Amino acid sequence: MTSNSLKKRWRDGEITINGWLCIPTSWTAEVMAHAGFDTLTIDAQHGLATDLTAILPMLQAIATTDTVPLVRVAWNDPAQHMRMLDAGAQGIICPMLNTRAETEAFVQACRYPPQGYRSIGPLRASLGDEAGYLRKANDEVLTMAMIETADGYRNLEDIAQTPTLDALYVGTWDLCMTMGLEKMADFDDPVLLGMLDTILNVAAKNNIMAAVHCGTPENAIKMREMGFQMVTPLTDTFSLQQAIAEGLRKLRD
Amino acid sequence: MTSNSLKKRWRDGEITINGWLCIPTSWTAEVMAHAGFDTLTIDAQHGLATDLTAILPMLQAIATTDTVPLVRVAWNDPAQHMRMLDAGAQGIICPMLNTRAETEAFVQACRYPPQGYRSIGPLRASLGDEAGYLRKANDEVLTMAMIETADGYRNLEDIAQTPTLDALYVGTWDLCMTMGLEKMADFDDPVLLGMLDTILNVAAKNNIMAAVHCGTPENAIKMREMGFQMVTPLTDTFSLQQAIAEGLRKLRD
Amino acid sequence: MTSNSLKKRWRDGEITINGWLCIPTSWTAEVMAHAGFDTLTIDAQHGLATDLTAILPMLQAIATTDTVPLVRVAWNDPAQHMRMLDAGAQGIICPMLNTRAETEAFVQACRYPPQGYRSIGPLRASLGDEAGYLRKANDEVLTMAMIETADGYRNLEDIAQTPTLDALYVGTWDLCMTMGLEKMADFDDPVLLGMLDTILNVAAKNNIMAAVHCGTPENAIKMREMGFQMVTPLTDTFSLQQAIAEGLRKLRD
Amino acid sequence: MTSNSLKKRWRDGEITINGWLCIPTSWTAEVMAHAGFDTLTIDAQHGLATDLTAILPMLQAIATTDTVPLVRVAWNDPAQHMRMLDAGAQGIICPMLNTRAETEAFVQACRYPPQGYRSIGPLRASLGDEAGYLRKANDEVLTMAMIETADGYRNLEDIAQTPTLDALYVGTWDLCMTMGLEKMADFDDPVLLGMLDTILNVAAKNNIMAAVHCGTPENAIKMREMGFQMVTPLTDTFSLQQAIAEGLRKLRD
Amino acid sequence: MTSNSLKKRWRDGEITINGWLCIPTSWTAEVMAHAGFDTLTIDAQHGLATDLTAILPMLQAIATTDTVPLVRVAWNDPAQHMRMLDAGAQGIICPMLNTRAETEAFVQACRYPPQGYRSIGPLRASLGDEAGYLRKANDEVLTMAMIETADGYRNLEDIAQTPTLDALYVGTWDLCMTMGLEKMADFDDPVLLGMLDTILNVAAKNNIMAAVHCGTPENAIKMREMGFQMVTPLTDTFSLQQAIAEGLRKLRD
Amino acid sequence: MTSNSLKKRWRDGEITINGWLCIPTSWTAEVMAHAGFDTLTIDAQHGLATDLTAILPMLQAIATTDTVPLVRVAWNDPAQHMRMLDAGAQGIICPMLNTRAETEAFVQACRYPPQGYRSIGPLRASLGDEAGYLRKANDEVLTMAMIETADGYRNLEDIAQTPTLDALYVGTWDLCMTMGLEKMADFDDPVLLGMLDTILNVAAKNNIMAAVHCGTPENAIKMREMGFQMVTPLTDTFSLQQAIAEGLRKLRD
Ligand SMILES: [Mg+2]
Ligand SMILES: [Mg+2]
Ligand SMILES: [Mg+2]
Ligand SMILES: [Mg+2]
Ligand SMILES: [Mg+2]
Ligand SMILES: [Mg+2]
Repeated sequence: MTSNSLKKRWRDGEITINGWLCIPTSWTAEVMAHAGFDTLTIDAQHGLATDLTAILPMLQAIATTDTVPLVRVAWNDPAQHMRMLDAGAQGIICPMLNTRAETEAFVQACRYPPQGYRSIGPLRASLGDEAGYLRKANDEVLTMAMIETADGYRNLEDIAQTPTLDALYVGTWDLCMTMGLEKMADFDDPVLLGMLDTILNVAAKNNIMAAVHCGTPENAIKMREMGFQMVTPLTDTFSLQQAIAEGLRKLRD
Repeated sequence: MTSNSLKKRWRDGEITINGWLCIPTSWTAEVMAHAGFDTLTIDAQHGLATDLTAILPMLQAIATTDTVPLVRVAWNDPAQHMRMLDAGAQGIICPMLNTRAETEAFVQACRYPPQGYRSIGPLRASLGDEAGYLRKANDEVLTMAMIETADGYRNLEDIAQTPTLDALYVGTWDLCMTMGLEKMADFDDPVLLGMLDTILNVAAKNNIMAAVHCGTPENAIKMREMGFQMVTPLTDTFSLQQAIAEGLRKLRD
Repeated sequence: MTSNSLKKRWRDGEITINGWLCIPTSWTAEVMAHAGFDTLTIDAQHGLATDLTAILPMLQAIATTDTVPLVRVAWNDPAQHMRMLDAGAQGIICPMLNTRAETEAFVQACRYPPQGYRSIGPLRASLGDEAGYLRKANDEVLTMAMIETADGYRNLEDIAQTPTLDALYVGTWDLCMTMGLEKMADFDDPVLLGMLDTILNVAAKNNIMAAVHCGTPENAIKMREMGFQMVTPLTDTFSLQQAIAEGLRKLRD
Repeated sequence: MTSNSLKKRWRDGEITINGWLCIPTSWTAEVMAHAGFDTLTIDAQHGLATDLTAILPMLQAIATTDTVPLVRVAWNDPAQHMRMLDAGAQGIICPMLNTRAETEAFVQACRYPPQGYRSIGPLRASLGDEAGYLRKANDEVLTMAMIETADGYRNLEDIAQTPTLDALYVGTWDLCMTMGLEKMADFDDPVLLGMLDTILNVAAKNNIMAAVHCGTPENAIKMREMGFQMVTPLTDTFSLQQAIAEGLRKLRD
Repeated sequence: MTSNSLKKRWRDGEITINGWLCIPTSWTAEVMAHAGFDTLTIDAQHGLATDLTAILPMLQAIATTDTVPLVRVAWNDPAQHMRMLDAGAQGIICPMLNTRAETEAFVQACRYPPQGYRSIGPLRASLGDEAGYLRKANDEVLTMAMIETADGYRNLEDIAQTPTLDALYVGTWDLCMTMGLEKMADFDDPVLLGMLDTILNVAAKNNIMAAVHCGTPENAIKMREMGFQMVTPLTDTFSLQQAIAEGLRKLRD
Repeated sequence: MTSNSLKKRWRDGEITINGWLCIPTSWTAEVMAHAGFDTLTIDAQHGLATDLTAILPMLQAIATTDTVPLVRVAWNDPAQHMRMLDAGAQGIICPMLNTRAETEAFVQACRYPPQGYRSIGPLRASLGDEAGYLRKANDEVLTMAMIETADGYRNLEDIAQTPTLDALYVGTWDLCMTMGLEKMADFDDPVLLGMLDTILNVAAKNNIMAAVHCGTPENAIKMREMGFQMVTPLTDTFSLQQAIAEGLRKLRD
């Protein structure tokens, strides 16, 4: 495991840009890694790479660059958290967390004892640093709790205080739907903006980072200005779809 | 998502025939889809296609025809229910349900808020109808609860009343074993027939459908006559094994 | 095999738009198929899907729409031509053809006797029309000869007269390099435009179609105006790369 | 490599039954291997398993039984012959051979020097017998030349005399089409029967075996009675299709 | 399912040697199976083969020999226990068990009613013995509980008494870390040796077997002398790494 | 394409060590890449990774380090040479070359016009240097001709003079067999040593490099002392087999 630069960069006040991988191939992962994102997240929840058969080569493709690889797991399942870390993910984004207890279960699955209950076996993660990995991993591995349910939002303060949690990650679409907003992820909606502001404040107060799923570069610029330290402006599939639609429009019109 | 024709056809009194896919290839899935089943179920519990690496191309192969794709998931795991729906399954058959609470957890994982807690991200399911999918999905997606344990049978009435549950699906083999019957899936056994009758009645009383795993076309004809709205007469592997055995018998005798 | 609409549409004067697939997944193939191309070509030469393990699910994904699937094979190898047709490609684009003899070897590999020497075994191609396929295939299957070498350009007339050849396909980049042009695929270069004009004329004189690899929608519009019946404006990888680069530029500036 | 029992059994007058694998999975290969065929042929020409990614696990699945694994390669390509043998195929069936020279090129690719030009590297084939493999392989490996073109039939005698060729394998469908017969593989057609008789006689005269692609058990019984030592009555895909069609007929009528 | 020889051999006092598979290919699995281990364990927790897409061909590769295939699952997840058994694993090693209740949930997932709640569908496991499998499986299938957490060690006696549990398997590394030992898996550390002795005694007292993860052949020899009936001295990845490092050292020095 | 350091290092008199990859996984490729070889060769002839489905992720895994990736192709097939270069191999080792004409066909397939006939489309090779790749590739890409047949050895001088050929690579095993030596690759055999000496001299005279397949580190040390600039001492599969055998011997004795 190369030293995870992300924490340091956040502490230095840098705002990082995260790409989102739904296409299950190492080729598109490598293309995205060369595009210049700070981090790339393999989406194992709603994306199509969900098992190591697909995810391992994607992690390797990202490792041909300095981009930091993250995985958004499918659920709060300790076996999956540990497996992704063993395979070389440098951080886990866990969806649909509702309570402090759930968040503790998540974070502790990512920490070796005595901080947590992660099981030893960092097969790929320790490649090249077999000696040091066990010592350093608890500090290096990022844990990011998604705030995207009504319960999660209600328990925000409590979740944010989970020991060794590194960041909150706003799941904008799910949060809007679960809160009964009419439009999904409308970044002009004052209700949404109010919730985002609350989340930012809670993160800051607890000295952890705040990240947000943005959907477009334009939204990401807004969110960056609002104070989020990590923004996700682009996904592989949607970018491809838009580029093709735009190209075809030129020809069809 | 093309409009799920199945619900309408059931309401119109049609009895539908379901095929069962255990072979983990898109080729056999496409062959089965062209054979003329109303629905095809990818068996992610006892079959060999258990992850999207195998299941995604099978769902695509089925989508080359009008056959409705279903998935029998491995367990009552919300992440898996959601993933299969995101990938384009139009219904989930959930095994080994014992209680109303378990059934609610299952069904609600398949429904967006406020009816349930399905997370947003219908990557493939919404392809071609990005705008409408979120609005229509709760109505279109089928949820089928397997009745195949002693507890499940005991709690039958309660399970059948689970809001937005669409159907009961009898797991004949497991039901026989768990109830201590001597023969597995003997469709002449009055004890089994009695249970099937009870299940049919409970389904009818609660205005949901009833489906049954039959093993052979002959059993399926019986079950159709008994009143089941969906029957599963054929699986890919067993059909292949029987056809080959019969062919070789001609040559060996 | 559904009736190949392409020939008829060309005869009716329609100009068709072809997409290009280099990413080896059925998911991006399905996304591209839903985007509205008339044809999609799986690039088995310079793309990353080169064997049926990757190509079969892509062909199936395309078959969920009306888009006509083509394959640009890696070389003039009869086994590969036949295999792609058996798997359901409705046409073959063969690269690097230099002579009439090579073109005959290509075209005849795509035709059943007595017109050619294609071997019988259209496993997937005949699915749903086992009876009719052998009768119709020689008429339906498209053969497109790439003109992209100095020798191929010199032997253009001779190649164009190959019996049952359907189209010429200009490999603009290779043609420019092999002819020693300074810029690759500069569609304002009069030398390139002169060659394109010659190819168009030879195709017209021989009553076959002419297609051209364009690189961008803008070039494709020019080529359509120039008279080409099929243009290739967009590839999956380059579109993804451009969309991401543009999105990141917005954030980095 | 376990000793290839096939040659001995043929010499002892046994008539062997060969199954045909087109479905690209190790599961169906294992199912077929347990069904009791003497040999199983992976069809890398018209079937869907064409590269080691798919073929290696199929060869391993067959090796869980005593069934002898063969590969029908896609074309007369020495690299492919050698690769399939290295991976554990115990014999190669080569399609579309037209001449003695082509047949020699095929057979010699399967023989180590001085009998041929096979390259050393039997990675899997020699597993468990690293010492003995190079010594025994030339005797054990089966080479079967397909007779299925007009040229091949014309050059039959010459082909049959190719040194170390083990058998002729009649490609009935291609042979019928290339000879201009009206019906493909009509085993009552006296013209076809005449050709089959000629092939049998030429094989016998040259002390090599004769095998034939039959399509059905009924045809295979005829061919066995006619004198062929190896018959191919059943393929995986067609058997599956027929079994399903028959099962559905029971329910649809 | 061939009769699982392991239980008998243990009863006869034999000490068995177990290999450990982390590389996700059927080729290395077959190589390891031919090396002469008594059992081979596919590590689906920390290894890289975690889904049937990778594990099925590995199980088939092992089945080309008499080596008994086991799976170390990722977590105490009944769906995964059942799936691995259905696919042909002859025993399950379950990690991170803390309590008697967890162990019962594990063991019962591996037993058909009335001993447990395993669901019927032994697709591959019953191949060749469809009639007998359901009758024999509860006796043949091995269940091994990992003792590797502080809680698990504390509840050792209780866990060992779980009905139909076959063995304890010491997860040496996790046990050391969770108990706060300074060195991981130092087989000279009297604290570790004390715990190993306790585990051996508890196993013996409860008439079940004891196995231990050793890391090296040298440790395995010690553990065998200490009384363990099954030792795991070698993993594929570590063996490869060591052999390469040693080979390169010869050249670099 | 990062600048290929190999040519410069050879010119500087460095002797490089090459590893050999037969196991078809990106994991073992990454493990080998971290072991410290100067180059790693994916063996697409006798190894089990033969198509991009397997080879692409291996090339990516190697690219996580500075190790230079090479491919030993299966045969002198221009489509395969080009494909491997497009996918990022920095050199091609071509087996079984017999003549100057064959060698020219090989080398020119690896060179863009006017030096050769490589077709444009360096999809992955040019990632990160789209502008410069076409300009630099002819200088950077390595071409290595295997000398391993009687004909190839006879035509050695002629082959060595092929324009832009970079190196001769001795296929020791095949060379021994084709020359009728009794022992394969006995590096004490004066006949073999004589041939190796001749090859070294011819390479030196023609100002190209000489490499040799050695089988063991001990042989590699000899060959290095003899003057070869590149030696291949270790393969993944054989190293694994030896390490396991040695480990088991300790336990079985
Ligand atoms: Mg969400
Ligand atoms: Mg069941
Ligand atoms: Mg070109
Ligand atoms: Mg044929
Ligand atoms: Mg452990
Ligand atoms: Mg060689």
